[in-house]
Amino acid sequence: MNESEVEKTILDVAKRALAASHQLAALSTEQKNAALLRIADLLEAPETLPVLLEANERDLQTGASLGLSDAMLDRLRLTPQRIKGMIEGTRQVVDLEDPVGAILEQKTHKKGFSIEKVRVPIGVIGIIYESRPNVTIDCAVLCLKSGNSTILRGGREAFHSNMTLAAIIRRALEETGLPIDAIQLIPTVDRYALTVLMKLDEYVHCIIPRGGEGLIRFVSENARMPVIKHYKGVCNIYLDADAERQMSIKVTVNAKCQRPSVCNAAENLIVHKDVLQSIFPDVAKALKEEGVQLRVDDCAAETLEAFGGIPFTMATEEDYHTEYVDKIISIKTVDNLEEAITFVNTYGSGHSDAILTENEEAAARFQTEVDAATVYWNVSTRFTDGFEFGLGAEIGISTDKLHARGPMGLNELTTYKYLIRGHGEIK
Amino acid sequence: MNESEVEKTILDVAKRALAASHQLAALSTEQKNAALLRIADLLEAPETLPVLLEANERDLQTGASLGLSDAMLDRLRLTPQRIKGMIEGTRQVVDLEDPVGAILEQKTHKKGFSIEKVRVPIGVIGIIYESRPNVTIDCAVLCLKSGNSTILRGGREAFHSNMTLAAIIRRALEETGLPIDAIQLIPTVDRYALTVLMKLDEYVHCIIPRGGEGLIRFVSENARMPVIKHYKGVCNIYLDADAERQMSIKVTVNAKCQRPSVCNAAENLIVHKDVLQSIFPDVAKALKEEGVQLRVDDCAAETLEAFGGIPFTMATEEDYHTEYVDKIISIKTVDNLEEAITFVNTYGSGHSDAILTENEEAAARFQTEVDAATVYWNVSTRFTDGFEFGLGAEIGISTDKLHARGPMGLNELTTYKYLIRGHGEIK
Repeated sequence: MNESEVEKTILDVAKRALAASHQLAALSTEQKNAALLRIADLLEAPETLPVLLEANERDLQTGASLGLSDAMLDRLRLTPQRIKGMIEGTRQVVDLEDPVGAILEQKTHKKGFSIEKVRVPIGVIGIIYESRPNVTIDCAVLCLKSGNSTILRGGREAFHSNMTLAAIIRRALEETGLPIDAIQLIPTVDRYALTVLMKLDEYVHCIIPRGGEGLIRFVSENARMPVIKHYKGVCNIYLDADAERQMSIKVTVNAKCQRPSVCNAAENLIVHKDVLQSIFPDVAKALKEEGVQLRVDDCAAETLEAFGGIPFTMATEEDYHTEYVDKIISIKTVDNLEEAITFVNTYGSGHSDAILTENEEAAARFQTEVDAATVYWNVSTRFTDGFEFGLGAEIGISTDKLHARGPMGLNELTTYKYLIRGHGEIK
Repeated sequence: MNESEVEKTILDVAKRALAASHQLAALSTEQKNAALLRIADLLEAPETLPVLLEANERDLQTGASLGLSDAMLDRLRLTPQRIKGMIEGTRQVVDLEDPVGAILEQKTHKKGFSIEKVRVPIGVIGIIYESRPNVTIDCAVLCLKSGNSTILRGGREAFHSNMTLAAIIRRALEETGLPIDAIQLIPTVDRYALTVLMKLDEYVHCIIPRGGEGLIRFVSENARMPVIKHYKGVCNIYLDADAERQMSIKVTVNAKCQRPSVCNAAENLIVHKDVLQSIFPDVAKALKEEGVQLRVDDCAAETLEAFGGIPFTMATEEDYHTEYVDKIISIKTVDNLEEAITFVNTYGSGHSDAILTENEEAAARFQTEVDAATVYWNVSTRFTDGFEFGLGAEIGISTDKLHARGPMGLNELTTYKYLIRGHGEIK
């Protein structure tokens, strides 16, 4: 396609998504659930598996020839097990409460008319993602349940897998009488398509980018519509002067090691100078035993040298900003609580931060002044997750502050409108 | 200032605003109210009036020499009465409930820790506005009460008035022990300052533009941070097949004529063909008697010609998109409810739309399918307003769908965070 063909194609996708969104907003829960169940059934049909695996094989071969890393290829791969995960995930969404139509507030104006604030779908949501084809199903079903049209833009490397999944979804929509344009995959891998999409704020109400830092930066710098970023997780653990020894070891090890590759794993450990020589060496030893590399500042280095037997390297300024997603942790010593809070607000990514302390006052101050989506007191940061928070689902974890913050479930995919009902009242 | 000086100045403003916002988030309601009362007292102090009027006079003289229209000069003018309005407005905000700290949700995780979702300030809010200097006070006090730092960027023509008002605010902050950088006016009228500010998404969390279409478009196309638009109000009234005659006349006249210059005044009247010859001529006559010009389509023209005595011109496509803010209304005839809904969703600005009908089913469908912040049934659109909706204040009316929709009060100037409190729980 040349540029003007891409423009025409994307404009057409966006217009049809908007028209479909007006129909979706009026659907009953039963109609939406019937479509979701049909998606699950079609994914489960015996004839689907070979088609999906074949499309995925084409992507894997292209990926290998493009020199994708093994980790990338693994994320790209569809297996019967992973497809089963999509099917189960879709059926779980059927069981979730429909957020649309919930009455959020209700009052009567003194002139007599009623004012109702009700939950409604956002409209058209663009999902821009990389690699993992399961995102196609995960995001589409959550957007559908919440009454939104979805425009999907997956990675170039997963194009055939995504096209096949999108075709299944659209067949399910058609078979259950829903507008097929409610879920569309952008039918070209041309990067210019993304540029065009990001200018269509008249038709697309929100973009959720899911992927690496580069993609998220590109989208938030160029999109005209609101963007809800799922940015990096630089999570901090602060060992306060009044931290308890065993809890400090247990929680820090869990936050760093239980699954280092996820966004709610800890990346920085901040240590109050009063516990640097008492508790910190035990924490450092436990981390070392789990195979964690330590990157430390001068004070911590001195302590570890005196303690002996724990290898470390010196931390750079850049380290404190880094989401390692690996068994590495940066250590920073502070003189007081205030310094710890400033450190978190400077280097953290506003995702999840924890204070470990027996001092209630220090905890309250940390929880008030740390500017993050989730602030923990004596609990591992690993719990930041839509399912753990009882949202029933998760389209991602917002590191933004507007519209949605932290784990995003179905409610976070909605907005509201005011409905006024009266009897001819005038001003 | 040259470009690099502007960049340095704006970066400095933004960094100081962010640092102040962390202090503001921890303030008690009493501390914030003390500062608000001090602002009101300083505005009321006898020595303030001449200083303010003198600064305003400089702006008026520059404005006149720049050839500003009388309407523009009137909006720019400060009078003792208008200053009194600011003082009263500020004192009213003292009496409003502090939104910060409200617990929105609370649950206990099965492992034992508590999860609390609490309301917190957004952080740093940029307000970009034109002409009216009272916006300086109105916005600053609402942002302060909700715990946000504010960066104000007023119009070039009101620079001296705004600088004087900002100095009063900052003196009040200082005298009551609050961080003075919580409220800052950009100290240059250079347009490049706006361009720089809009890129600083690391420090400024949200921009609210208040002004004409050109300004709003410029900001939403260029800002990297979320923008909550207060865009035009193209409000529609739909006379359904089952509309009641007297109510149709009364509500349409009120929606168009009670104050034509505001954003919730009606601009388009949609008429079902079944009432085109029965009710519409009476509505048209009543509008004519109020001095309203009619711009009509072919069907309405034919009807009015047969009826006689009501002047009209033909409507263009552009008319239906236009916010006249004047005594002009566009008329569109439709064959059915569906066509009316499509018209509203195509030409309306998502602000306020009304259906007039005795048919409950038609009303329900209109209210569900019209995609607007406020949808009325048998009530004038003129009620879309933070005070009428019981919000106690209004920083504007959002025509966006994300974060805040419709009238924005103090709650809409906040976000939330999750606070987790436990006893060493790990995953």
